[in-house]
Amino acid sequence: MTPQRTPDPQTGAAVKAADRAHVFHSWSAQGLIDPLAVAGAEGSYFWDYEGNRFLDFTSGLVFTNIGYQHPKVVAAIQEQAATMTTFAPAFAVEARSEAARLIAERTPGDLDKIFFTNGGAEAVENAIRMARLHTGRHKVMSAYRSYHGGTNTAINLTGDPRRWASDSGSAGVTRFWAPFLYRSPFHATTEAEECARALKHLEETITFEGPATIAAIILESVPGTAGIMTPPAGYLPGVRALCDRYGIVLVLDEVMAGFGRTGKWFACEHFDVVPDLLTFAKGVNSGYVPLGGVAISRKIAETFEHRPFPGGLTYSGHPLACAAAVATINVMEEEGVVEQAAHLGATVLEPGLRELAERHPSVGEVRGLGAFWALELVRSKETREPLVPYNASGADNAPMAAFGAACKKRGLWPFINMNRTHVVPPCNITEAEAKEGLAVLDEALTVADEYTV
Amino acid sequence: MTPQRTPDPQTGAAVKAADRAHVFHSWSAQGLIDPLAVAGAEGSYFWDYEGNRFLDFTSGLVFTNIGYQHPKVVAAIQEQAATMTTFAPAFAVEARSEAARLIAERTPGDLDKIFFTNGGAEAVENAIRMARLHTGRHKVMSAYRSYHGGTNTAINLTGDPRRWASDSGSAGVTRFWAPFLYRSPFHATTEAEECARALKHLEETITFEGPATIAAIILESVPGTAGIMTPPAGYLPGVRALCDRYGIVLVLDEVMAGFGRTGKWFACEHFDVVPDLLTFAKGVNSGYVPLGGVAISRKIAETFEHRPFPGGLTYSGHPLACAAAVATINVMEEEGVVEQAAHLGATVLEPGLRELAERHPSVGEVRGLGAFWALELVRSKETREPLVPYNASGADNAPMAAFGAACKKRGLWPFINMNRTHVVPPCNITEAEAKEGLAVLDEALTVADEYTV
Repeated sequence: MTPQRTPDPQTGAAVKAADRAHVFHSWSAQGLIDPLAVAGAEGSYFWDYEGNRFLDFTSGLVFTNIGYQHPKVVAAIQEQAATMTTFAPAFAVEARSEAARLIAERTPGDLDKIFFTNGGAEAVENAIRMARLHTGRHKVMSAYRSYHGGTNTAINLTGDPRRWASDSGSAGVTRFWAPFLYRSPFHATTEAEECARALKHLEETITFEGPATIAAIILESVPGTAGIMTPPAGYLPGVRALCDRYGIVLVLDEVMAGFGRTGKWFACEHFDVVPDLLTFAKGVNSGYVPLGGVAISRKIAETFEHRPFPGGLTYSGHPLACAAAVATINVMEEEGVVEQAAHLGATVLEPGLRELAERHPSVGEVRGLGAFWALELVRSKETREPLVPYNASGADNAPMAAFGAACKKRGLWPFINMNRTHVVPPCNITEAEAKEGLAVLDEALTVADEYTV
Repeated sequence: MTPQRTPDPQTGAAVKAADRAHVFHSWSAQGLIDPLAVAGAEGSYFWDYEGNRFLDFTSGLVFTNIGYQHPKVVAAIQEQAATMTTFAPAFAVEARSEAARLIAERTPGDLDKIFFTNGGAEAVENAIRMARLHTGRHKVMSAYRSYHGGTNTAINLTGDPRRWASDSGSAGVTRFWAPFLYRSPFHATTEAEECARALKHLEETITFEGPATIAAIILESVPGTAGIMTPPAGYLPGVRALCDRYGIVLVLDEVMAGFGRTGKWFACEHFDVVPDLLTFAKGVNSGYVPLGGVAISRKIAETFEHRPFPGGLTYSGHPLACAAAVATINVMEEEGVVEQAAHLGATVLEPGLRELAERHPSVGEVRGLGAFWALELVRSKETREPLVPYNASGADNAPMAAFGAACKKRGLWPFINMNRTHVVPPCNITEAEAKEGLAVLDEALTVADEYTV
């Protein structure tokens, strides 16, 4: 079926009107938003009802790793719908077994058992539950500049302002600072120094919190929405060693970074680190059907071998979602999507973005890997003052709003968070498409440049 | 496509082997379970790879309100997959707008805005978040004998043993007793007395907790897995009045009871009560694609009109899930599924189950409505001692295990929780199918009878 691309403003207006009347949107003041009515999507593009087409540099919310409407995954969903759309979690069903097998074969080390959820937040909730029961400890350590999901435990682990409204201080979470050389919490000047100081900070924090009180440390292998701060090479191995030393469970959150995004199946592979629990969602089936999960190491699985795991959900291992995962993983293998992401990063995005950074005074830093990049926009390269204040809104956020509008006007849908734009297109975006997007960024950055000092 | 029904034990063995190697199951000791490999499902039946066919008196986990593989909903999923499988939540998309409109038109009162989640737990999490921010209060009251979901806030609201492992006493929840005449917490002897005493107990508990500290009271309109205790007619109106008196948000959890299960679109309609927030999932699209949500009253929506709602999720209003909801609701209207549930209850299930209760010494009580019934199995009708102790396992649970095995041996898949079996088939099960199931229950209850004193 070829999607409708003829402008149809009347339908668009109806869709928008029903949305405004009845849809309550995430993370928003309902009266202050104006959602674009989207008519269709394919590959790296989507379009509205007015005839405008956008190159999607966001992959939705960084989940369409294989782009929109991949025909093989669409066909697999249709076929699964025809045979077994749904089935309860207590049974063995083919799509669920096969998805678990394909995922377990790709997760590193002995992460061989898969607990399926509907998304990343529930994956994190259940990973923390496993860690607490495995260790008999309650406290969990997480990093500032992080995001782990919207449910109560997950949002309390989160190190960005989305936590604040839900943080009553009672979730058993304590936070630390992770490495981020560009805005070093440790006053370091090199990656090696940042790494060493970040590990020293973490160990000291563990010591003062009391190692025997800490169930888990959770980190995004490469933090996502918080800024794509690829850690120094030695950091995750160092955290792994601290966890081993103190009997702490290491949870790596790969909800955004996993399934090809960084140019490896899982981001932790860049660092040769195997966590005790790995959370995933999004890229596992390119978001075609809600799915997330926890990959579980042997020693933690053994804890629940003869003792019930006290967690679950109605749609755990939903057949339709699992069938989409099977098809997505097979497509990624057949088409080399993981390799495409690595190649895209190395040959197009990194050189292209570094070239933009050289020419634009508003670009303070370019960082990332694979199909996972951030531009840090600043008022001054010298002072590194962010282009807008932390958690700005309204007039304070005008520079980023102007930058975003400039992108959209030119047919590019940008990912924007605070003073950053992330370049997170589908992993299989073509070189020509990626360059088209970079050219728009180039023009839009001239708007951001106007706000530099 | 006609599903494969020829026995195929080899495939079944492979599915089972991959499941045992890689799937980590909900609420289970992984080494002690033996999941049946299921080959297919249609209408009110499913079948395994050995050629065994089962009548499903569980509706999965009480979600296939229209049965398995309804052709119109399958077709709608296939069509949505062909056009727009997925899209990020910040946009207006047709399936999302239309699902929200159809749901809002059916929820009672001014519950006109829909916040979509992936399932019931996230719906409850977000409803409680809304209630806390709307009132500026933190504490939430929930009932013993309840289930509200598996994420941290939801499981802490839960009043059954599944909570215990996740309850550190810090979730801001306090619990009370709801009416249940058969095992009255209030020593009442009539429904009217039970109702009055339950309301007095609730008001006194509110008074001693401090009304100004309580954000919300959450109740299942008709408690589900905890035992299908239909409340006395005056109870929910009485709770509504208490909430109004003390400025407490009333959250009714209709994840299991909603969307036709009780013979009305929503169970609260039986009592003419409109909550401030209503949570749903399961029946909204018969579980064909993971979906849940919160229906929001005008006054609570207004709280987030100019102030951001601090909650959200990647797949909020997922197009595929919403398209399945649109199709399911339309099927339910066209085929009169809600009316079918009411008729089934009144003409087949209630008389049939009451007749079983008369003849079997193990049946202590029959209660329910629509397609939502519980049999309370007891060692003695006189003493009402449950057939197995609360939260029994292993040898203690032998009587219920024997009853369950007797059902399965005769081709009926029963819903069993503690000392109860629930009769919760698809709402559109035929009269002949329902009677087939009742006949099996009749035989299996003779096994339960052997354990009576």
